[in-house]
Amino acid sequence: MKKGRLEAFSDGVIAIIITIMVLELHVPHGEGLRDLGPLIPVALSYVLSFVLVGIYWNNHHHMLYACTRVNGAILWANLNLLFWLSLMPFGTAWMGESHFAKWPVVLYGGILIMNGIAYTILCNLLVKEAGPNSPLALALSRDWKGMTSIAIYAAAIAVAFLNPLLAFGMYVGVAMLWLIPDRRIERNVAREDGAE
Amino acid sequence: MKKGRLEAFSDGVIAIIITIMVLELHVPHGEGLRDLGPLIPVALSYVLSFVLVGIYWNNHHHMLYACTRVNGAILWANLNLLFWLSLMPFGTAWMGESHFAKWPVVLYGGILIMNGIAYTILCNLLVKEAGPNSPLALALSRDWKGMTSIAIYAAAIAVAFLNPLLAFGMYVGVAMLWLIPDRRIERNVAREDGAE
Amino acid sequence: MKKGRLEAFSDGVIAIIITIMVLELHVPHGEGLRDLGPLIPVALSYVLSFVLVGIYWNNHHHMLYACTRVNGAILWANLNLLFWLSLMPFGTAWMGESHFAKWPVVLYGGILIMNGIAYTILCNLLVKEAGPNSPLALALSRDWKGMTSIAIYAAAIAVAFLNPLLAFGMYVGVAMLWLIPDRRIERNVAREDGAE
Amino acid sequence: MKKGRLEAFSDGVIAIIITIMVLELHVPHGEGLRDLGPLIPVALSYVLSFVLVGIYWNNHHHMLYACTRVNGAILWANLNLLFWLSLMPFGTAWMGESHFAKWPVVLYGGILIMNGIAYTILCNLLVKEAGPNSPLALALSRDWKGMTSIAIYAAAIAVAFLNPLLAFGMYVGVAMLWLIPDRRIERNVAREDGAE
Repeated sequence: MKKGRLEAFSDGVIAIIITIMVLELHVPHGEGLRDLGPLIPVALSYVLSFVLVGIYWNNHHHMLYACTRVNGAILWANLNLLFWLSLMPFGTAWMGESHFAKWPVVLYGGILIMNGIAYTILCNLLVKEAGPNSPLALALSRDWKGMTSIAIYAAAIAVAFLNPLLAFGMYVGVAMLWLIPDRRIERNVAREDGAE
Repeated sequence: MKKGRLEAFSDGVIAIIITIMVLELHVPHGEGLRDLGPLIPVALSYVLSFVLVGIYWNNHHHMLYACTRVNGAILWANLNLLFWLSLMPFGTAWMGESHFAKWPVVLYGGILIMNGIAYTILCNLLVKEAGPNSPLALALSRDWKGMTSIAIYAAAIAVAFLNPLLAFGMYVGVAMLWLIPDRRIERNVAREDGAE
Repeated sequence: MKKGRLEAFSDGVIAIIITIMVLELHVPHGEGLRDLGPLIPVALSYVLSFVLVGIYWNNHHHMLYACTRVNGAILWANLNLLFWLSLMPFGTAWMGESHFAKWPVVLYGGILIMNGIAYTILCNLLVKEAGPNSPLALALSRDWKGMTSIAIYAAAIAVAFLNPLLAFGMYVGVAMLWLIPDRRIERNVAREDGAE
Repeated sequence: MKKGRLEAFSDGVIAIIITIMVLELHVPHGEGLRDLGPLIPVALSYVLSFVLVGIYWNNHHHMLYACTRVNGAILWANLNLLFWLSLMPFGTAWMGESHFAKWPVVLYGGILIMNGIAYTILCNLLVKEAGPNSPLALALSRDWKGMTSIAIYAAAIAVAFLNPLLAFGMYVGVAMLWLIPDRRIERNVAREDGAE
């Protein structure tokens, strides 16, 4: 089974998710600079979610670029990831509109954890299909970032009960961690290409 | 006529349908855990519809992968399927927001039946174009799942007048039936490829 | 310049247009069968617009399939068509929500005429680029449908001032006219392919 | 790394941005011609933004067509551009609904400047990757339009404090400047192709 349509469908869904989040930036009724004030938390949430979804697209892109075959289980693992990503607009809007209240920040962290887990499952299935000596398997063998992110999300959820803004800062920290793009796969694929 | 653009357009429409359903998960005004309570039926409806639309995408993917040519009638049968799929967000939202009331659950079942019929029509036209001895025709010759699903939907609609929640459970049952991906086409295509 | 990205972008925009129209089918507040009543005009408008936009996609698909090269002017003529198509959701919703009142039906007809003109412009630019003896030019040389449609739209707008429902019926008539897919291009391309 | 998925994802996001802006054209409650009156500023803003986003798509198309390779930094520069483009629907709606009030016109100009800067960054990274003697580098070496546009946007923001409508006219002027498609890249690529 070829991976082309899987990439196309994922690109479509992720493109829609990343774009409809902006619909939650409701146009203010007034026309002054002050009327933008209440939108600041919503805008901050939007920026963070845009970056996080962008990171998922970026890593998804790298990961599928390095793989060659997909199977039925991979299709479903991918849909599972898209499902959790699709909850990002809801989580983002609630966190922003509540001005970083406790429960919305906790829920947002929960959605992030579920995304992290879904991504890990997809990752493992792709490695299983590609084989243990594939460039993909070697590239992902030292994957500390995924696990670290999930651990930080879990810690941030606990922190949110005391200080939601600090938890938000921790989510931002995870985004920073990933903004350095995942060159491991790129490098290994390049090395493999060179060796052939 | 090539099938590439048909796949691309269908992927686009299905990606949008599966994603805009989440817009019905309206952000609660409060910021407590309790404020999520009324959203539970909407969220459950969303999960079911996400899975069902995901199943259609998955099977559409498999079916078109196995076919080689499309014609004008197939383009229209495909648009017909996309039309009925496009009613899923409406049906989902009404069922969720009414907390599984009788008529919304009946309407949802009706939309599912129309989707099933539209899929069957598309299927038959693809088999007709591919020829009676094509891998696609052989693969779909023992298609009991499609008919079973439509029968269960019809039964669920009758049940909904007495117990809408039980009808909802029957819709979930159909989703379960399909979650096992349609490996028949895959297998036949693989066999054919091996025989050549 | 290759036509691939032009097709992909057009498919994306048309897929979104055809799908967001369903967002105007607002979920009723009640949960009875009666609550669907006021939605009937909106649903009828949606069906018509879905078919008309589907016809545009279909013909766009055929037309670009038969052409080989695009240029800057074609990109802009295509964006012009997409602009007028993007007004369909607005026109559809106003016509449906006003229960086929005079001005909304007139505006809807106006949007249809602008779409027809934009399509004709795109058509002519494609023929000019392909050359006067190209299969595309031959196929479109007997294009009576486009002109007939625009004439019927103009007549329907005049009729709308007396009887908006009759005008709506005329729009439906144009859709019928086109539902028979544009096999002329297909046939000419096939003939050309056979001749080579 | 291939540029295919970058193009596909960008096309998807830009297609959604250009289309969801029309959702801000809210259907009027009345059914008379007069009820369209208050929509005129919103419609004018929509037309301008549709053209401006169309220009970005068009130039993005040309620029990526001329380039051959992408890298991680380019992926992020592209996401950065998509982020600023995604704020267009918000800026457009606020400017239209406020009937071209001072602050909304200023904000719109600010979003346009950020888009211009993001586009320039992407441009520079692509040229860097392609090398100083690539057709892309030669084509973009005389890029006066980008800088001129940013300068006009900055001037328009200053003007907006005195006369917002005049500032709006200046934005329209920039659109005019770009409507003549960027044939420089096309021509250089064509020349290069001819020389080989």
